[in-house]
Amino acid sequence: MLVFPGFELLDVFGPLEMFGRLSERARLLVVAPAPGPVPSHQGPACVAEAAFAGELGLDVLLVPGGMGTRPLVADPAFLAELRRQCGAARWVGSICTGSALLAKAGVLDGRRATTNKRSYAWATAQGPRVQWVPEARWVEDGKYFTSAGVSAGMDMALALIARTLDRAASLEAAAGAEYEWHEDPAWDPFARMNGLV
Amino acid sequence: MLVFPGFELLDVFGPLEMFGRLSERARLLVVAPAPGPVPSHQGPACVAEAAFAGELGLDVLLVPGGMGTRPLVADPAFLAELRRQCGAARWVGSICTGSALLAKAGVLDGRRATTNKRSYAWATAQGPRVQWVPEARWVEDGKYFTSAGVSAGMDMALALIARTLDRAASLEAAAGAEYEWHEDPAWDPFARMNGLV
Repeated sequence: MLVFPGFELLDVFGPLEMFGRLSERARLLVVAPAPGPVPSHQGPACVAEAAFAGELGLDVLLVPGGMGTRPLVADPAFLAELRRQCGAARWVGSICTGSALLAKAGVLDGRRATTNKRSYAWATAQGPRVQWVPEARWVEDGKYFTSAGVSAGMDMALALIARTLDRAASLEAAAGAEYEWHEDPAWDPFARMNGLV
Repeated sequence: MLVFPGFELLDVFGPLEMFGRLSERARLLVVAPAPGPVPSHQGPACVAEAAFAGELGLDVLLVPGGMGTRPLVADPAFLAELRRQCGAARWVGSICTGSALLAKAGVLDGRRATTNKRSYAWATAQGPRVQWVPEARWVEDGKYFTSAGVSAGMDMALALIARTLDRAASLEAAAGAEYEWHEDPAWDPFARMNGLV
């Protein structure tokens, strides 16, 4: 999981809760442009263990959103590293406006993707060559899984677990977290709520 | 929000996401028996800003669960401080096996409460004088809001926001997080899934 100053709390810890339930089948690693304590948009900080650089050997790279994405879309060094790490990872998932970072890095060009439904205009403007999908809980296109806003990251994470391991692991993770998985990627009442459909 | 080594990630960051959406109407404070980095059960650490001691002036004290609760129910100094802080806070919410800590501290005696549905036998054994409710997403009794496992903390947090501020603030927080609030505290498919009803 990538974090950066101003990340959105649930974007990060919802998916980590789900992947964290796979016990020996997954190891979590929190990385950041600068390792150490990284403050969230809401204030509370998490600790990044490693730098977002070099050979990380990631099976899954997860990219959250939050107000901290706003300066990063104008940071060429960050975007170049993100592009490189996306190329190296076997699977890439984004949560909320994390897809704006992927879009600006160019890795979603020509692909279908979604994003936060309140920040839809800003996020989609970061990738004019992306086939943005306004009504979707998450969108899968090749190795990229992009989710809608905040909470949608948990549903996407469970879908990514189902794709990379098996559906039984997703159902077990959801049951253990007493979480009602929205297993249908087309479920998205928030698109209508925000006037996107 | 109280944290301790071995806390469950979503127990902490689900409710903080919801309270964090109240902007100037709430300030988040993460406290721990020892401030500084505190590792979760899953590995990733958060940073506690202050010690769980002294006059914290909390309107709402939130107590998470996780495997880290197991040693704490046998820690008299921690339980005495928890009892004191519960007395001082205007409202107290627990997530998952956080209610086992409240129960062991004695503050739920004679009250209705719920807890995680997989760790139900262990958690309820910590409070023989608590009126445990097996089928509930959360239970409100006086100033205490106790939730079921992990994800249930988000639904409880929104209920606590509705009680302490107003329902509009809860609906706005849920919509902003693209979260489908289970507003009915009786909604609990996990009680049946775990053979409790």
